[in-house]
Amino acid sequence: MINRFKRLLIGRPMKSAEIEGEKLSKLKALAVLSSDALSSVAYGTEQILIVLMVAGFTAVWYSIPISIAVLGLLFILILSYRQTIFTYPAGGGAYIVAKDNLGVSSGLLAGGSLLIDYLLTVAVSSSAGTDAITSAFPSLHDHRVLIALMMILFLTIMNLRGITESASVLAIPVYLFVAAIFLLILSGVIKYATGGIHADVPEIGTVVNNISLFLLLKAFSSGCSALTGVEAVSNAIPNFRKPADRNAAATLIMMGSLLGIMFIGISLLAYWYGIKPNPKETVVSQIAAITFGRGIFYYIIQGITALILFLAANTAYAAFPLLAFMLAKDKYMPNMFMVRGDRLGFSNGIIVLGLFSAVLVIASKGETENLIPLYAVGVFIPFTLSQLGMMVYWLKRRPPRWGSRFLVNTIGMLTTLVITLIFIFTKFSQVWLVFLFLPVVIFIFYYIHQHYMNTADQLRINVQTDQPHLKGSTIVVPVAGITRVVMNSLSYALSLTDNVVAVYVGFDDEGIERMEKKWEEWNPGVRLITLRSSYRSIIKPLLKFIDTIEWKTAETDHITVLIPQFITKHWWQHILHNQTSLLLRAYLFNQKHVVIATVPYRLQR
Amino acid sequence: MINRFKRLLIGRPMKSAEIEGEKLSKLKALAVLSSDALSSVAYGTEQILIVLMVAGFTAVWYSIPISIAVLGLLFILILSYRQTIFTYPAGGGAYIVAKDNLGVSSGLLAGGSLLIDYLLTVAVSSSAGTDAITSAFPSLHDHRVLIALMMILFLTIMNLRGITESASVLAIPVYLFVAAIFLLILSGVIKYATGGIHADVPEIGTVVNNISLFLLLKAFSSGCSALTGVEAVSNAIPNFRKPADRNAAATLIMMGSLLGIMFIGISLLAYWYGIKPNPKETVVSQIAAITFGRGIFYYIIQGITALILFLAANTAYAAFPLLAFMLAKDKYMPNMFMVRGDRLGFSNGIIVLGLFSAVLVIASKGETENLIPLYAVGVFIPFTLSQLGMMVYWLKRRPPRWGSRFLVNTIGMLTTLVITLIFIFTKFSQVWLVFLFLPVVIFIFYYIHQHYMNTADQLRINVQTDQPHLKGSTIVVPVAGITRVVMNSLSYALSLTDNVVAVYVGFDDEGIERMEKKWEEWNPGVRLITLRSSYRSIIKPLLKFIDTIEWKTAETDHITVLIPQFITKHWWQHILHNQTSLLLRAYLFNQKHVVIATVPYRLQR
Repeated sequence: MINRFKRLLIGRPMKSAEIEGEKLSKLKALAVLSSDALSSVAYGTEQILIVLMVAGFTAVWYSIPISIAVLGLLFILILSYRQTIFTYPAGGGAYIVAKDNLGVSSGLLAGGSLLIDYLLTVAVSSSAGTDAITSAFPSLHDHRVLIALMMILFLTIMNLRGITESASVLAIPVYLFVAAIFLLILSGVIKYATGGIHADVPEIGTVVNNISLFLLLKAFSSGCSALTGVEAVSNAIPNFRKPADRNAAATLIMMGSLLGIMFIGISLLAYWYGIKPNPKETVVSQIAAITFGRGIFYYIIQGITALILFLAANTAYAAFPLLAFMLAKDKYMPNMFMVRGDRLGFSNGIIVLGLFSAVLVIASKGETENLIPLYAVGVFIPFTLSQLGMMVYWLKRRPPRWGSRFLVNTIGMLTTLVITLIFIFTKFSQVWLVFLFLPVVIFIFYYIHQHYMNTADQLRINVQTDQPHLKGSTIVVPVAGITRVVMNSLSYALSLTDNVVAVYVGFDDEGIERMEKKWEEWNPGVRLITLRSSYRSIIKPLLKFIDTIEWKTAETDHITVLIPQFITKHWWQHILHNQTSLLLRAYLFNQKHVVIATVPYRLQR
Repeated sequence: MINRFKRLLIGRPMKSAEIEGEKLSKLKALAVLSSDALSSVAYGTEQILIVLMVAGFTAVWYSIPISIAVLGLLFILILSYRQTIFTYPAGGGAYIVAKDNLGVSSGLLAGGSLLIDYLLTVAVSSSAGTDAITSAFPSLHDHRVLIALMMILFLTIMNLRGITESASVLAIPVYLFVAAIFLLILSGVIKYATGGIHADVPEIGTVVNNISLFLLLKAFSSGCSALTGVEAVSNAIPNFRKPADRNAAATLIMMGSLLGIMFIGISLLAYWYGIKPNPKETVVSQIAAITFGRGIFYYIIQGITALILFLAANTAYAAFPLLAFMLAKDKYMPNMFMVRGDRLGFSNGIIVLGLFSAVLVIASKGETENLIPLYAVGVFIPFTLSQLGMMVYWLKRRPPRWGSRFLVNTIGMLTTLVITLIFIFTKFSQVWLVFLFLPVVIFIFYYIHQHYMNTADQLRINVQTDQPHLKGSTIVVPVAGITRVVMNSLSYALSLTDNVVAVYVGFDDEGIERMEKKWEEWNPGVRLITLRSSYRSIIKPLLKFIDTIEWKTAETDHITVLIPQFITKHWWQHILHNQTSLLLRAYLFNQKHVVIATVPYRLQR
């Protein structure tokens, strides 16, 4: 039943050999891995304008140089990540690069930041998608959390179905979004060029009195939040079709170009149209309204924008399980993240991502706006570390033409470092949580690592010298009466050794005598030992008895406790029988060094 | 830790031999077993007056003959239950009497009614206690359910601590209540006799125009709700000190006398004072206010009345576990109700009563008023059946002087039958639920019985002919690598038999080859069989392999699957390791007929 439901939900299991078919073509990869980055276009320009408006409307012309600066940073990041892809074709992004070149701690810092970041992405995106829905249908406003959770559930199931299947479904809205924004920019530019727009905007270069460097930096850093998601490609190289590195690099460049054109296009139109940020209407919505009027085109663009904001989460679903896999492979996360599920995805990573982001949504009651700065810091820390790592890489190896590459990464590192610092200084009240979470996460990584190392040490044997050694055998069979189950268990025990002893725990003398007499009558060839329990506990006298046996024979014999157990036909009939055997198993397992064997007897009715 | 907390909560465990000390003296028994019945005094008269007021104030004089009729019924019930106690000195009340004389179905009907009734008692009483508290502290009104649950928790813990201990604590308020009501009646009678009261009340015998037989019957049946709880003594005979039957009978008579005097006293005062029922103030409160004025005495009576209403639940805590024990002994309820806990009470019965009544309180959101008629029907069905059973008993045995005893039970049976029918006809809209629950409960009783009978049939052996028979042994050891845990398991297996085979499940050819090579190098004297899993499942290929082994050797050999397992030092480290061995155990246990043995290896760090 459960199995059939699982099939229905995620599809038939796939053979390991089918994995090549699950790899992504460039076009599908672009859809899955760039939805996070591309969706930034919907709010990037707006973030810049909001900060600039603090200095008055005349300051909005600064949005153009700032957008160009963001574009420059994007260019550097793309170049630098392209270098990383070819240097580390097995994938891994910031975690691998930082770990390899800067040491384990830096790697874990980068990896931990990214993991937190992906969780936040899913929480923020699903809330953004919910906002879009509840704006359209205000009556649903009370069910925000529920809707966000349903979205997370939907994404989780889609991703459990497998990478290509989710890519096939989710590629359509991504490309629709790209097409829609290009159409919008093109129409806007034509309208502006043909004189259809005559907004009264401050000319570029106008002197603004009360602008400060701090404000400009803040505007710049806010604009940089549009660059989150750029690292996803380098994390996900193993998901690409062969040649994975070339395909990944090509995808990265495509993504960068699309993002750059769309971002600068929207910024230009916003400036030309003289658009002021408005809490009730987004900048993109204003541009679309002016360009197309509030007709069918306008609503299409609005709908697709909402959709892409929600699909940004899918990038996290592609990258989180891969990063978790790499951390697990290095023994910094639980082994379970290494297991490929029925559909060849890392299901545990997908499920954990879904669960934790659901918890985030519930905990924040669906109001995730405050998480956005947190999330930008979570990206720029690994950006910086990965660039620093690449700098060290070039310095150490010095391959031909390393100088220019070193330069690219140095510029990238310095810029992202500065942005990280700006984030921390300008929005400390919103990002301090990161400095609480990161040490905890890194501590957990180390703890897990230590545990695995300890375990391996203790389990390791020397194949030359360590060999199995034989011992005698003593089998203890606790019996509650003379039944078919007991007979079965005794048959089994006697087949293995003559050292079998049955133990009966009685509560009063009559009961014990009755049992002894009946046993004698039966005479199954096994000695019965009876124990009297004054406190009506069966477990405690048994444990004591096993102690005695251990003390007498543990050196010469393996001690087995053979628990007779019948299995009811239906599981719920179980509560009609006492659970002594289960309890006994649990106690023995946790406290004694004996082998525990269960001889099952299946009831037919 | 958990153990220490349990000690603190319910006290040290007690030896079985200490049970005599846990038995109740007459005075303690009266307190525990009569709190339900005596508390009825607080509302019995009021119930009669409320019905009569429908016909106008002149009809209130009928409360006197009706109260006398209730008293008469009480007298018959006491006489009849006294007879039952001596006839069935082992206890059991309605269930045993009905089962013995009328057949199993009638017994189960009586037993099921009483069990439901006890649940309702606890739910209703704890809600009544809560009402008293929230009347005094209205700010607590929003926490009604929580307060009621805390009360149930308190009673549950007190009863888990043991019968005598709860009796010692709870006896005080019961006797205080009796004393307070007697003082009230005495003062009231003196005040009336000395002419302190001159209420204008209808004389007895005044003609009332619009009174109907239906109304009078309804008033009578409402008054009879004061008799709930009378059966508790006969159910609880085993809890009495020796001679249990005499002590129980004496307690019953004491309870009947107290209840009778208090009930008729309150009814008389209410009539003399000309008291009208008032939804905002109880009849007892009005009488107390007139007698003492609203001074300290008045408040003491109010407080104690609230307390006794709440303590009525304790009667259910004494009777429910015993009745459940008797049903379990006859295999109509799960065995667990036969187990005496650390403090010699039937803890499972106490806990189940607490849990279910908590569920009732939560489900009804603490508004349990509507449950009261349900609860009266739940009492009068077993009343009727137990009297009918006694009638059959006398008819069959015909001991000396059986005629008068038969008469007592016949009158009792007819009266309680009529009251049951009146309840059903006058309050069908409130009691129909009983006719839904009772068949379900009785079905469950029969289902459980059938299951136990089936199980016993299947487990029974013939001690003359059935003997253990020896077989060969094949041991299968699933291995995931070459570790100390595996070595341990092989040592154990080889000590028992030479027929040991190790199985390794690999996901790809390289992995399998590597394992085979390493095994050869180690050469532990056990053949390794490798299986290739295309779907990355370890369990399925193993199950298939075990199928093959079963098919080949099940007739000649016992098959054991020996699962190597290491145990982490702390339980939460468990999630860092894959749970294949647990899963494998579960699958084997549920699907295969093989012995499952676990060789534990305890990690030290």
